[in-house]
Amino acid sequence: MIALKGAPVSAKIKEEIDAYRTRLSGPSPKLGIVRVGERPDDLSYERGALKRMEKLGLEAESFAFPENISHEEFEKEFLAINENPDIDGILLLRPLPRQIDEQRIIRLIDPEKDLDGISPANIAKVFSGDSTGFAPCTAEAVIEVLKAYDIPIAGKRAVIVGRSMVVGRPLSMLLLKENATVTICHTKTRDLPGVCREGEILIAAAGKARMLDNSFAGKDAVVVDVGINVDEDGNLCGDVDYDSLEGTAAMATPVPGGVGAVTTSVLAKHLVRAAANRRR
Amino acid sequence: MIALKGAPVSAKIKEEIDAYRTRLSGPSPKLGIVRVGERPDDLSYERGALKRMEKLGLEAESFAFPENISHEEFEKEFLAINENPDIDGILLLRPLPRQIDEQRIIRLIDPEKDLDGISPANIAKVFSGDSTGFAPCTAEAVIEVLKAYDIPIAGKRAVIVGRSMVVGRPLSMLLLKENATVTICHTKTRDLPGVCREGEILIAAAGKARMLDNSFAGKDAVVVDVGINVDEDGNLCGDVDYDSLEGTAAMATPVPGGVGAVTTSVLAKHLVRAAANRRR
Repeated sequence: MIALKGAPVSAKIKEEIDAYRTRLSGPSPKLGIVRVGERPDDLSYERGALKRMEKLGLEAESFAFPENISHEEFEKEFLAINENPDIDGILLLRPLPRQIDEQRIIRLIDPEKDLDGISPANIAKVFSGDSTGFAPCTAEAVIEVLKAYDIPIAGKRAVIVGRSMVVGRPLSMLLLKENATVTICHTKTRDLPGVCREGEILIAAAGKARMLDNSFAGKDAVVVDVGINVDEDGNLCGDVDYDSLEGTAAMATPVPGGVGAVTTSVLAKHLVRAAANRRR
Repeated sequence: MIALKGAPVSAKIKEEIDAYRTRLSGPSPKLGIVRVGERPDDLSYERGALKRMEKLGLEAESFAFPENISHEEFEKEFLAINENPDIDGILLLRPLPRQIDEQRIIRLIDPEKDLDGISPANIAKVFSGDSTGFAPCTAEAVIEVLKAYDIPIAGKRAVIVGRSMVVGRPLSMLLLKENATVTICHTKTRDLPGVCREGEILIAAAGKARMLDNSFAGKDAVVVDVGINVDEDGNLCGDVDYDSLEGTAAMATPVPGGVGAVTTSVLAKHLVRAAANRRR
């Protein structure tokens, strides 16, 4: 079984970013990361994003607010970042605390700065196959992995486990755009192993530690694991029991070191694109 | 094989509309139909919509513009209708002629009046499973047919042939919301008959006259035909060869008299909902 590692994919995206930047005049593109509270997931993703931007020579600034900030106060602060001409793109770490009306904030975000594709304008573009918008970075990272390893998508059966707005749904549309025949599964799917085995490309985005073993993988399937979970022993693991796939799947992404390692590269690519659009 | 006729579904929707209207104060809800040119498809759909509104005691007005109207002129006229407080909902007949920037008009339409779900705000809501928006009427008509005939959707395999923004894509999300396991097929799908036979519910929305015969239908499948085509002899026909399904499918919608007969009822239901929202 071939391990589809994220690092070579990120290296390829870095080349694209570098080539793109040479054509871009003005200051270095700048990312604004907006975080409320100190959730470990958020802090970890923020660290990863900051490190990636630094590595790529891109600017980044964290805007952190206390867990108990009121909606009114946060909206005011968020709008200031949204309208700040020095910020080319925004990453809003979610979910936001309950007192904040997240849907309202999402509707306020400038679609041109909405690098993770959470605004209605970008959602509508992803849904309609219009690639001028921004898709959620994790969903797009899956496509980047498949393309970097020259895995054909057109005409293939792609099965996605999970229907979230962060991965499952947008990814179904990105795969459709690549002409895959797409099936979306979820907790109410009957005979999930059987449906998953139909997939020549199987995407695990359920958010359950090692939920899928080799009984879910078709012979010679390409398995992409989007899950990032912590198991009972405190170790990072995916939605897929990677080792069990040996002898069944042809290729699979490891966790860690697979799709997760590509997500912040896609974020950086979106940032450079956003900066280019704004300076046009 | 049971014929899933549209008339009883429309009768059921009429009851819902009547019940809804008794709680609605003020003048009768009013639909504005916006048409550019005289395409036979548009004229036929407009006639159907006007007739339906009249039958239901709802107001409707047609706004027709010449085929060669400029974008600027049309935009001005469209905005006037969009902002007209007497108009509760709008049906924009499409496609618009080439000189008009259709995407721009779509972005202008007030999401609260956008009865056929073409605005980014409504597209994003359909995609995210938020039922406060308006889905495209034809896609929703399919769900209305299934529900009116008490056909279970949750946990079922639903296969959709066609990935348009009018039916295939939004319907995939509506079926997902009903907890079906959804597969989307299209012109690049390999072994289309085989994939279609997996469907316990098969939706034909390809736009090709009698493209699907019984070799595409699984044993005891429920077949919903969204196609409205004209065959070589000038007769209306669907995407499905209805007669060939006898002995294979359990139920199927005829064309004409199936889903098409429900679409304007859904439009009327959306109109009443839009009026209620606006008067809240």
